[in-house]
Amino acid sequence: MRYPHAILALLDELERLPGIGPKSAQRIAYWLLASEYGDARRLADAIVNAKDTIHFCPICFDFAQSDVCEVCGNPRRDATCLCVVEEPRDVTAIERTGEYDGLYHVLHGVISPLDNIGPDQLRVAELMSRLVDAVVAEVIIATNPNVEGETTATYLARLIKPLDIKVTRIASGLPVGGDLEFADEVTLGRAMEARREL
Amino acid sequence: MRYPHAILALLDELERLPGIGPKSAQRIAYWLLASEYGDARRLADAIVNAKDTIHFCPICFDFAQSDVCEVCGNPRRDATCLCVVEEPRDVTAIERTGEYDGLYHVLHGVISPLDNIGPDQLRVAELMSRLVDAVVAEVIIATNPNVEGETTATYLARLIKPLDIKVTRIASGLPVGGDLEFADEVTLGRAMEARREL
Repeated sequence: MRYPHAILALLDELERLPGIGPKSAQRIAYWLLASEYGDARRLADAIVNAKDTIHFCPICFDFAQSDVCEVCGNPRRDATCLCVVEEPRDVTAIERTGEYDGLYHVLHGVISPLDNIGPDQLRVAELMSRLVDAVVAEVIIATNPNVEGETTATYLARLIKPLDIKVTRIASGLPVGGDLEFADEVTLGRAMEARREL
Repeated sequence: MRYPHAILALLDELERLPGIGPKSAQRIAYWLLASEYGDARRLADAIVNAKDTIHFCPICFDFAQSDVCEVCGNPRRDATCLCVVEEPRDVTAIERTGEYDGLYHVLHGVISPLDNIGPDQLRVAELMSRLVDAVVAEVIIATNPNVEGETTATYLARLIKPLDIKVTRIASGLPVGGDLEFADEVTLGRAMEARREL
């Protein structure tokens, strides 16, 4: 038995989503088919509406619905501090901590020679042009603590330091609630290295 | 920071899908926002198109795009054998085995007194009316091997047997590739009970 064409087309599209395999796609497709017409329609409309109204903030390149994103458009945020992240989801993650009140800059990727991604494919030029007017005092580089993220951090640090701007890197160490016994050597080594006086 | 309204609406709709929590919803939403406009549009269109064109087969109540589903509309399928399943996904699972060439009947649920679901909420009356014209010689009850599935199987067997139709139940036992050591007692007990001569 083959699926009816319309189901097949739906499965194809669902399977392209991140984290959705054939089983999940079937589960979602069947749920949609068995649900109220309005429910499925609302999902379809939400997708189209989001694509129609959400664009990249021309300043920080996070997603925005207004001219600029909510962070860039908020005069109470600390404009002297800029946090550089890989993706919009990282902005969400940092905002959730409630610990940061500066601005952001989304690179939309990391330097990864294997994938042919260099600084030119990222929002690096736009970052540099934000730094020239001398308002920013500190750039926090919050790329992921893996090879590509570290490479990108090192590259950006070298680029920014000549402008006499402080460049910092988010700390690596044991996750809170974690367990020394189960930490990998590299993480534990970093945690020792970055120890602080109490 | 709050999400822009259009992203929030999209997240709300995505989180309603089965198996999609807040993290997956965000991942999918951000993927859609970063993807080509056409990609997102195709997903939305596939959803609406599936809802517009797929309906329940009036014979077996599986999903169908034509008047009747592909199985019911196929004259080469064995009309003397009817396999009763809970959901359309079960039809897909059995079709995938390639072992069955009879017809199906989808109940759209199981008897579950706790959820207030009795035979009247299922396609039981429609099943019985398919059995009256004396073509069907065997009904295979392929509801899931759990409490509700077994209850439903027992109920249907009692209903169908007076019509002089053979009623069978799919076998329970060890999954192929499984391990006696790790099988639960009930499954292993069933496997012993249903042993076959070699």
